[in-house]
Amino acid sequence: MSAERALQRCDELARLSEEEGMITRWYGSASLLEAADAVAGWMEEAGLAVRRDAVGNVIGRVGDGPGTFVLGSHVDTVRDAGRYDGPLGVLLAIEAAEAVGGELPYALEVVAFADEEGGRFPLTYLGSRGWAGDLTADDAALTNGLGEKLGDAARALGGDANAIGTRSAPEDLAGYLEVHIEQGPVLQDENLPVGIVTAIAAQSRGIADFRGMAGHAGNTPMRLRRDSLAGAAELVLEVERLAQGTEGLTATVGWVGNEPNVGNVIPGHTWTTYDVRHQDDATRDRARDELEATARAIADRRRLELDWRRRDDLPSVRMSPRLRAVLAEACIQAGTPVRELGSGAGHDAVTASRLTSEVAMLFVRCKDGISHHPAESVRVEDVAVALDVVVRFLGLLAADPGRPEPRKEQ
Amino acid sequence: MSAERALQRCDELARLSEEEGMITRWYGSASLLEAADAVAGWMEEAGLAVRRDAVGNVIGRVGDGPGTFVLGSHVDTVRDAGRYDGPLGVLLAIEAAEAVGGELPYALEVVAFADEEGGRFPLTYLGSRGWAGDLTADDAALTNGLGEKLGDAARALGGDANAIGTRSAPEDLAGYLEVHIEQGPVLQDENLPVGIVTAIAAQSRGIADFRGMAGHAGNTPMRLRRDSLAGAAELVLEVERLAQGTEGLTATVGWVGNEPNVGNVIPGHTWTTYDVRHQDDATRDRARDELEATARAIADRRRLELDWRRRDDLPSVRMSPRLRAVLAEACIQAGTPVRELGSGAGHDAVTASRLTSEVAMLFVRCKDGISHHPAESVRVEDVAVALDVVVRFLGLLAADPGRPEPRKEQ
Repeated sequence: MSAERALQRCDELARLSEEEGMITRWYGSASLLEAADAVAGWMEEAGLAVRRDAVGNVIGRVGDGPGTFVLGSHVDTVRDAGRYDGPLGVLLAIEAAEAVGGELPYALEVVAFADEEGGRFPLTYLGSRGWAGDLTADDAALTNGLGEKLGDAARALGGDANAIGTRSAPEDLAGYLEVHIEQGPVLQDENLPVGIVTAIAAQSRGIADFRGMAGHAGNTPMRLRRDSLAGAAELVLEVERLAQGTEGLTATVGWVGNEPNVGNVIPGHTWTTYDVRHQDDATRDRARDELEATARAIADRRRLELDWRRRDDLPSVRMSPRLRAVLAEACIQAGTPVRELGSGAGHDAVTASRLTSEVAMLFVRCKDGISHHPAESVRVEDVAVALDVVVRFLGLLAADPGRPEPRKEQ
Repeated sequence: MSAERALQRCDELARLSEEEGMITRWYGSASLLEAADAVAGWMEEAGLAVRRDAVGNVIGRVGDGPGTFVLGSHVDTVRDAGRYDGPLGVLLAIEAAEAVGGELPYALEVVAFADEEGGRFPLTYLGSRGWAGDLTADDAALTNGLGEKLGDAARALGGDANAIGTRSAPEDLAGYLEVHIEQGPVLQDENLPVGIVTAIAAQSRGIADFRGMAGHAGNTPMRLRRDSLAGAAELVLEVERLAQGTEGLTATVGWVGNEPNVGNVIPGHTWTTYDVRHQDDATRDRARDELEATARAIADRRRLELDWRRRDDLPSVRMSPRLRAVLAEACIQAGTPVRELGSGAGHDAVTASRLTSEVAMLFVRCKDGISHHPAESVRVEDVAVALDVVVRFLGLLAADPGRPEPRKEQ
């Protein structure tokens, strides 16, 4: 097993792209098929038996049950992506499977999901949803804004549009582990190579839309103004203040629109996004509701109209306490500090959690927390630690590989 | 004389446009030539002797000196304009000149400036600048982004590109009065038909450009953020707070740019305009400098980089105390309250002030302060009051029409 080889393969996949000069691999594209073929080849070299499922996920299997443990991540990318968000987890899993796959008292599967980012169809986690049996036969007819059909894209990857509602996850699924770059600066800030995820945060997103009255910047006295940008600016600072005062909360205004957006005209219409995340659903709910109340108070005081639009309210997903403990033991054996941290971003593990409570994630330090950007960067030493931890984790699981849970109702 | 007729003629000019369904008359356009021709015809009907100058201004004259008093405004418009910003002052002046022109012991000229808005060439007040002799022969070669030449546009209006540096303002200029819609809500707020302008405000404009560090909204803890939008939001509120606490100051952030401007990414680059105006140059200077210091303090505290770019710092232009007093007396005679107020916007009067200190402006109430917009609206009763005030003003001037000042060095 080799961290260097895993990174070299990330570089090789980075050359497969729909767009010259950048990394862009969306679902069903020629470059994604090339990437899937490359991954399938590397899986075979590693001694895995390879199959593809109906949506085009590549699945490599080694060993026998009782129980199948899955290592998963994705090989699609956002537009103009980095080379590690997704592929690192797949290629590190292949290295680990090669190292220990045949020696384990349970079956091991590595899954390269064909779509996590949702870059082509209005559906995130498309690959893991298909794997989990979370799609229906009707979804093959789903189209995007260009009129492209999901079923056709699946076929382009060697999938089977007619079987798109069929689960490919093992019926005796005993657990799921995903390795991913952190996409944040915490590990770098604390000089740690890896971190164990406690939960994927509950997330609320929406829009705060303020309407006031545009006017001449020179001839409208301050007392007669209804400045929508000033109202939005108050909200931006209140979002920040609330998060700074609430342990573990992140809250962000990432987007702002302003009209007429002319230097000498008082803004009459300003709208911002909000994004609120916390490991605990109730804390997230309270924060979101408090921000709404704050926005309404701002609007009232400033004689603005407010349209508060809730868009998404996703629950948190807790990682398995048992697997977190096994990961911690593996870190200790590997001689690296045990650091637990939350994930603010969603991952394929969210979908896996619908099949089993035995879900875990390991984060790898990334430079400056940058992701979804060509500047994504990891250190080979950190990847080596992660690989060592995963291999030890799989070994520790041999003592208690866990039991398949009764299949949940969808 | 008739306020109704003045407004009907505003409606007639509103039908002359370069763009279907909106009012757009830029310098040198066919529709502006039509407007100039219409104005020339109405001037002749009113008994004025009409001439055009080198840049295409239309000048109507009645009576004889010693001394020539000028009533001026413009007939060009911004894109998708209202029908009163500019034309109202011209058409009201024609009504007033018809009513009293022949009876005055001084000459009266009405000037319809061919360009005030600067919609075609990168030069505001083009019409009044030409009238004032403020252009040079070289300016005929000035081009815009489309490669169009100023001299050609002047010729299209019946002007003389070769004489573009020649002043057409009377050598015995005794004073200048401009009637204009307020472009603000003060008169409406106080239920007054007209107001006397004290000064055109000093104005500073520029850009505050904050750079921080973009990052993942879910995975970057609050303490590790360098959020450029949060910094800019603080500045927006400080701009407002400073103006609210400084008598007569207006300060506005009208424009905001934000990158990457994505809901789930912490902003890394945000830049805003600032626009600061006050009747007093020194107060304006202090306010601008205080905002710069505030922005630098915000940037330091938040670990942001700040690029503070000053773009314009225009001095205030004081209206003539003598003519303000005459306007006030005219208001009293007309039975309308005397209300003095500042102008936050620039006007052709700024250019006229380079030739004489005897410059005055009368504002007419406009609906909701709206200008540069199809919703511009005035009431005929208010226009009638303004016309009455101007006619009485011209009559009062007969006792002391003022003296031409020595020509200033340009």
